[in-house]
Amino acid sequence: MTWGADNLPYGVFSRRGEAPRVGVRYGDRVLDLAAALHDEVFAAPTLNPFMARGRTAWHDTRTLIVNKLTSDLAITEPHLVPLDQVRLHMPFEVADYVDFYCSLEHATNVGRIFRPGTEGLLPNWRHLPIGYHGRAGTVVVAGTPITRPHGQLGAGRFGPSAKLDIEAELGFVVGVPSELGAPAGAFEDHVFGVTLVNDWSARDIQAWEYVPLGPFLGKSFATSISPWITPLEALPRIPGRAQDPEPLDYLRRQSDWGLDVSVEVSLNGEVVSRPPYSAMYWTPDQMLAHMTVNGASLRTGDLFASGTISGAQREERGSLIELTWNGTDPIKLAGGETRTFLEDGDTVTIRATAGGRTLGEVSGTIR
Amino acid sequence: MTWGADNLPYGVFSRRGEAPRVGVRYGDRVLDLAAALHDEVFAAPTLNPFMARGRTAWHDTRTLIVNKLTSDLAITEPHLVPLDQVRLHMPFEVADYVDFYCSLEHATNVGRIFRPGTEGLLPNWRHLPIGYHGRAGTVVVAGTPITRPHGQLGAGRFGPSAKLDIEAELGFVVGVPSELGAPAGAFEDHVFGVTLVNDWSARDIQAWEYVPLGPFLGKSFATSISPWITPLEALPRIPGRAQDPEPLDYLRRQSDWGLDVSVEVSLNGEVVSRPPYSAMYWTPDQMLAHMTVNGASLRTGDLFASGTISGAQREERGSLIELTWNGTDPIKLAGGETRTFLEDGDTVTIRATAGGRTLGEVSGTIR
Repeated sequence: MTWGADNLPYGVFSRRGEAPRVGVRYGDRVLDLAAALHDEVFAAPTLNPFMARGRTAWHDTRTLIVNKLTSDLAITEPHLVPLDQVRLHMPFEVADYVDFYCSLEHATNVGRIFRPGTEGLLPNWRHLPIGYHGRAGTVVVAGTPITRPHGQLGAGRFGPSAKLDIEAELGFVVGVPSELGAPAGAFEDHVFGVTLVNDWSARDIQAWEYVPLGPFLGKSFATSISPWITPLEALPRIPGRAQDPEPLDYLRRQSDWGLDVSVEVSLNGEVVSRPPYSAMYWTPDQMLAHMTVNGASLRTGDLFASGTISGAQREERGSLIELTWNGTDPIKLAGGETRTFLEDGDTVTIRATAGGRTLGEVSGTIR
Repeated sequence: MTWGADNLPYGVFSRRGEAPRVGVRYGDRVLDLAAALHDEVFAAPTLNPFMARGRTAWHDTRTLIVNKLTSDLAITEPHLVPLDQVRLHMPFEVADYVDFYCSLEHATNVGRIFRPGTEGLLPNWRHLPIGYHGRAGTVVVAGTPITRPHGQLGAGRFGPSAKLDIEAELGFVVGVPSELGAPAGAFEDHVFGVTLVNDWSARDIQAWEYVPLGPFLGKSFATSISPWITPLEALPRIPGRAQDPEPLDYLRRQSDWGLDVSVEVSLNGEVVSRPPYSAMYWTPDQMLAHMTVNGASLRTGDLFASGTISGAQREERGSLIELTWNGTDPIKLAGGETRTFLEDGDTVTIRATAGGRTLGEVSGTIR
């Protein structure tokens, strides 16, 4: 089945009138972990306390859950709650949120659009995974309505954004903190799992504000994540994309953290793009190494995202600004409709699969 | 006295072997608020729960404390703990950290240094308070040692930063949250008080990484704040600096939130700069209005800082990159020493006063 024993992502759910608690998705049901495993860490309203326990605990818990769902299924059955009886919540409390810019094709496309007449890619891009801090307090769970932001669209011009866009990304969730003043350890010792991210972006606000300190209000109004966090153990790993020039020592890959994840972006139910995560230039282990090489510490709940996933083909681009070349080349939808950027009432859904398993979906509707 | 009944900043302290709790500074002592006011909110290890109560509670508490310290002083005396018997902690848990860029002189100076041959100030600067998100998890309390960051200093070049710098700033601490999807209310309904900020900056790392997404590792290794949060009620307010062009409606000032605060930057005990906060172009009420105009919500514990405070005179510049013009014009210290950027062992202390009252100090030593 799609959500089988080889998948088992974690989330936070509640039954009507009850407090949120941690569960694992299995088929169309949620396993109530506090009840099934008799462990109070799962009675918390976020994954943070469990994520802080570290890699050995994550592995042992997964083994235990698989046992409960296979050999002990008869005893476990009462703790499996049908999905239609629960509400899903933010799965973890976000500490810091960092967004990277790891797709060569995305950085090139956006560079050409924002800086016409240039090559697009800037001189530093191939040397380090470019990133910036986003607003942690406005990361919301899938399904939260997205209010179209107002802001400055140019000198003396104010109004609702006319270039509301999406960015299809993978997000990585930190479980184990690191010390201030030293680089973090191995990727798999810190990172708990993966979520899907839609980094909503108001391109007109962003274009006016982003020089010289980067995106701010063009991004900070909302970032949506999927309710299920897939543990690293469930992901199919592949070698990362070849890099030229050879990265500096601290960015050198120690093991394969390329991910064979296929992403699909739908607008009002119609697929408009299929970005391949395998095409990403910088891998998540490199993002983590870069983010902490200056001694910046990690906290449980830190979220860092890949940046827009875009492949080499037009139909693999993970944002509307690329798909429509900043609105100059609208996409055609069924029934004769077209889109440059998002209109009120539009629903965007980002889905991802990896090795036949689903990583879930993140959707949001503009109001 | 310097820390009299017209001042009364809040902080978090602990006595040896006891848990951190909230206190108010009075002279050379700390008033143990949980004991003096019989209110459990002050037994918390952060100011956050108290800050969340809002403006009326802040005012009433201040009135109560003044009474305790004047008419009830005999009864209150046992709850006043000498400063040399306590340790000071981070006064609040930082939710999101935003750093602005509100000094016209600083933005002009840094622009000329980073983009030689240009006017310095970019076309958007006079239209909106430029800002970006910093790393909340590496905001530390005064006295925390600062480890010199390593990072990329250019293509293929890695090592310890050779251009470690300071930024003298004021920080504003949010008490009352706001809803996602709508602008925040009045400044004084959300903001609890003011702290001093040293936004440590590695200029060589920053110069290489900051295009196009802004400062990241050049800043994220540490940001120091003072242990005492001065409530808004204790601050001397003055009209903000004249602005041209007239700001858009949402940025129009509703009341006077210019602040007559004098800042003093010392390097190893010697004053090297006296930046005047009154010269800032954008006032903190405008920062708050801008930060939330796109519907981004506020949380209790959000910190937003002014950006480097620099006046028109050389001796009023709040960063070494400006004081030494990117190292080309070293500053001379007593005893014949000179400095371009910080050396290991250097201690920087930022102090501020307002209307004869101290706002405290934030210091840190490089290791």
